[in-house]
Amino acid sequence: MANAEAAATADPADALRRVFAEALGTLLLLTVVIGSGIMGERLAGGNAALALLANTAATVGGLYVLIEVFGPISGAHFNPVVSLVSTVRGDLSRSLLLPYVAAQLAGAVLGAWLAHAMFDVEILQFSAKVRAGPAQWLAEAVATFGLILVIFRVPSGRVAAAVALYIGAAYWFTASTSFANPAATLGRMFTDTFAGIAPASVPGFVVSEIAGGILALLVARCFGRRD
Amino acid sequence: MANAEAAATADPADALRRVFAEALGTLLLLTVVIGSGIMGERLAGGNAALALLANTAATVGGLYVLIEVFGPISGAHFNPVVSLVSTVRGDLSRSLLLPYVAAQLAGAVLGAWLAHAMFDVEILQFSAKVRAGPAQWLAEAVATFGLILVIFRVPSGRVAAAVALYIGAAYWFTASTSFANPAATLGRMFTDTFAGIAPASVPGFVVSEIAGGILALLVARCFGRRD
Amino acid sequence: MANAEAAATADPADALRRVFAEALGTLLLLTVVIGSGIMGERLAGGNAALALLANTAATVGGLYVLIEVFGPISGAHFNPVVSLVSTVRGDLSRSLLLPYVAAQLAGAVLGAWLAHAMFDVEILQFSAKVRAGPAQWLAEAVATFGLILVIFRVPSGRVAAAVALYIGAAYWFTASTSFANPAATLGRMFTDTFAGIAPASVPGFVVSEIAGGILALLVARCFGRRD
Amino acid sequence: MANAEAAATADPADALRRVFAEALGTLLLLTVVIGSGIMGERLAGGNAALALLANTAATVGGLYVLIEVFGPISGAHFNPVVSLVSTVRGDLSRSLLLPYVAAQLAGAVLGAWLAHAMFDVEILQFSAKVRAGPAQWLAEAVATFGLILVIFRVPSGRVAAAVALYIGAAYWFTASTSFANPAATLGRMFTDTFAGIAPASVPGFVVSEIAGGILALLVARCFGRRD
Repeated sequence: MANAEAAATADPADALRRVFAEALGTLLLLTVVIGSGIMGERLAGGNAALALLANTAATVGGLYVLIEVFGPISGAHFNPVVSLVSTVRGDLSRSLLLPYVAAQLAGAVLGAWLAHAMFDVEILQFSAKVRAGPAQWLAEAVATFGLILVIFRVPSGRVAAAVALYIGAAYWFTASTSFANPAATLGRMFTDTFAGIAPASVPGFVVSEIAGGILALLVARCFGRRD
Repeated sequence: MANAEAAATADPADALRRVFAEALGTLLLLTVVIGSGIMGERLAGGNAALALLANTAATVGGLYVLIEVFGPISGAHFNPVVSLVSTVRGDLSRSLLLPYVAAQLAGAVLGAWLAHAMFDVEILQFSAKVRAGPAQWLAEAVATFGLILVIFRVPSGRVAAAVALYIGAAYWFTASTSFANPAATLGRMFTDTFAGIAPASVPGFVVSEIAGGILALLVARCFGRRD
Repeated sequence: MANAEAAATADPADALRRVFAEALGTLLLLTVVIGSGIMGERLAGGNAALALLANTAATVGGLYVLIEVFGPISGAHFNPVVSLVSTVRGDLSRSLLLPYVAAQLAGAVLGAWLAHAMFDVEILQFSAKVRAGPAQWLAEAVATFGLILVIFRVPSGRVAAAVALYIGAAYWFTASTSFANPAATLGRMFTDTFAGIAPASVPGFVVSEIAGGILALLVARCFGRRD
Repeated sequence: MANAEAAATADPADALRRVFAEALGTLLLLTVVIGSGIMGERLAGGNAALALLANTAATVGGLYVLIEVFGPISGAHFNPVVSLVSTVRGDLSRSLLLPYVAAQLAGAVLGAWLAHAMFDVEILQFSAKVRAGPAQWLAEAVATFGLILVIFRVPSGRVAAAVALYIGAAYWFTASTSFANPAATLGRMFTDTFAGIAPASVPGFVVSEIAGGILALLVARCFGRRD
């Protein structure tokens, strides 16, 4: 994530490769999150803790692997807030910010649809699960604050494991189950299953996530650059 | 997996050692998968999420360890699709492809039987669990696509952990619980327990797995060789 | 934890940064512990094992990440017993001991309150859960003994994972669920939820934790210094 | 485990330190195994899969940490079969074999008693849980075979994680829940709780464990020495 090398991008074929990696990685991330939520809910016999434990385990494993696979290609952002703060810090070139975000948003929606196709449910759905109110928004800001802090402070050799474990913990310690990612929030709007979020709740989550990310940028600055 | 050194195999004793490692490793892998499925189902009191969580945890731990143990000897393929794409990429010598696959298939069946002997059930069984239809086939193709991508893109020092965690996640995010391996599919045909698959469902799974593997080969190529 | 470099602290800005890291890290640790306890209890449908499993998973992941994030800044003690024994061994300068402990205690209480705000419950609470008696005190002494031994004997490159996994195991193998930390004990006094401890039970826990830490110091000495 | 350096032991103080490490490490291992079994059973509300999942998680984390802590001192055997095969391979000096085994056996019993003291149950107990018959014996042989293979083949830098994850998997894939250790078997005889084994079942387990260890020695030889 936010590799220094990611800043240099003179080669258009390389830029294309990186944008494709962001799209494919975000697609697979949402497939993991939504698919494991469906499987967890189907098998858990009504016990929400079991469904969320399964959803957590699959997300931690899947996210770790996706960062390992796509990190050396694109930085494995999969998240517009990560791309935004990477641009502010000079780790991502400005010309790539919009293509990255567009790829993440498109990938997220396609990932929801791929999960639906595998689980044999209606492809096009919208969630009815309302997630709103100051407590939920605070939770999303805290979740994203922690995520950005992890990305900026953990050495790159361990960042894949740290990000995955952080998100797994945040599924449980934030009251919002830690979306912490506007692209994931958009993708999860398109599924009326365990991991979904009602369209009307999306703007509140996205604003909270951006606020949390900016706060992390400020705090990380006060600790100075890593190494 | 797919170690470069695995390509050189002039020494017949070395070839034998490697084929034996594939057989023993695949045997133990199937014992882990099927045995933990039996134990999970016996203890879970009818809760399928708990049984699959236990099955997942045992598979992740066991698969990681088996790749660490046998990787330096044979590459720890345990999977005909992995051996096939390794041959295409020149990581496995052609003369070893058939012996590898034969060892994997034989090991898988013996592994099912060892699990049955330990759990004191009928040794020779056939599963009655139908796993079929386009959604399941799509799930198997996605599962194998992801597995091959992980093997080709993750640095060899972390591939054991990445493969194990990927399979653990895929148990939940693919609707098929991610067999992703024709040898495992064959072995699981021979058990009428939690992890089983009906003989009539095997061809559809195997074709989907090969298709997913080939797709991964093409996508991995477009990202270029690792390092 | 207990980095050698942590001993040198001539620069007041650096000292401030380290004390702030202890406060913020302890705050987040308590948010993880208390928040995931609330979420676990809410979702587990009355099954205490499921609630504690979720609480354990979140604590292990969160603690690992917090040590990775704050370790290079302050040593990531988050725990007065750790700071105390680090001072005795000369790993923490005496002038920083009191500021560290004050930051940990303040952070712990704020962390409880942040969890309450996210989960939309009364901010100011006191636990009614009595945790007392010789068996519980023995458990706390054993828990802290193990923690300090881990910190003193595991090489610094793996100490984050080892501490996190140790605490996760100790949630289950000690009868007290392993607080092992006077700051965490104080913070958990301020929550009448899953992770709470009644104010009257706090002194017994703190004394046991300090005793366990001192015993670990003696045993670690008899094994000699690491490397 | 089985460190080459462990062979040199001219210094009697060093020998004493190592034997003490084996005793303390085995004590803590049994406390982890038996204590987490008690806690798991108490909280699981009659669901054996949940109790064993908790027992597994605690054992994996605790065993990993204990090997990290005591490995550099004594090799962290905690297991007479490991010490025996280490002696055969020349990794442990003959003069230390008996002191190691005696320390492991004494530590195991003391570990059971420490768990009982923490959980406030009768200190002196004997298990009534019969674990016998050819299927159970086969399972113990397989479990120990795998353990010794892991110890001999996995590079020492990753052996702590591999051993811990192997045992965690074997809790589920072997029908005996994988004692794989005569000292642990003895210690577990002294507890009439979740992890116990009836005294009459102990000899069958111990013989099977030794047989599995010897078989692993032969198979490991056929693969040649690691590195």
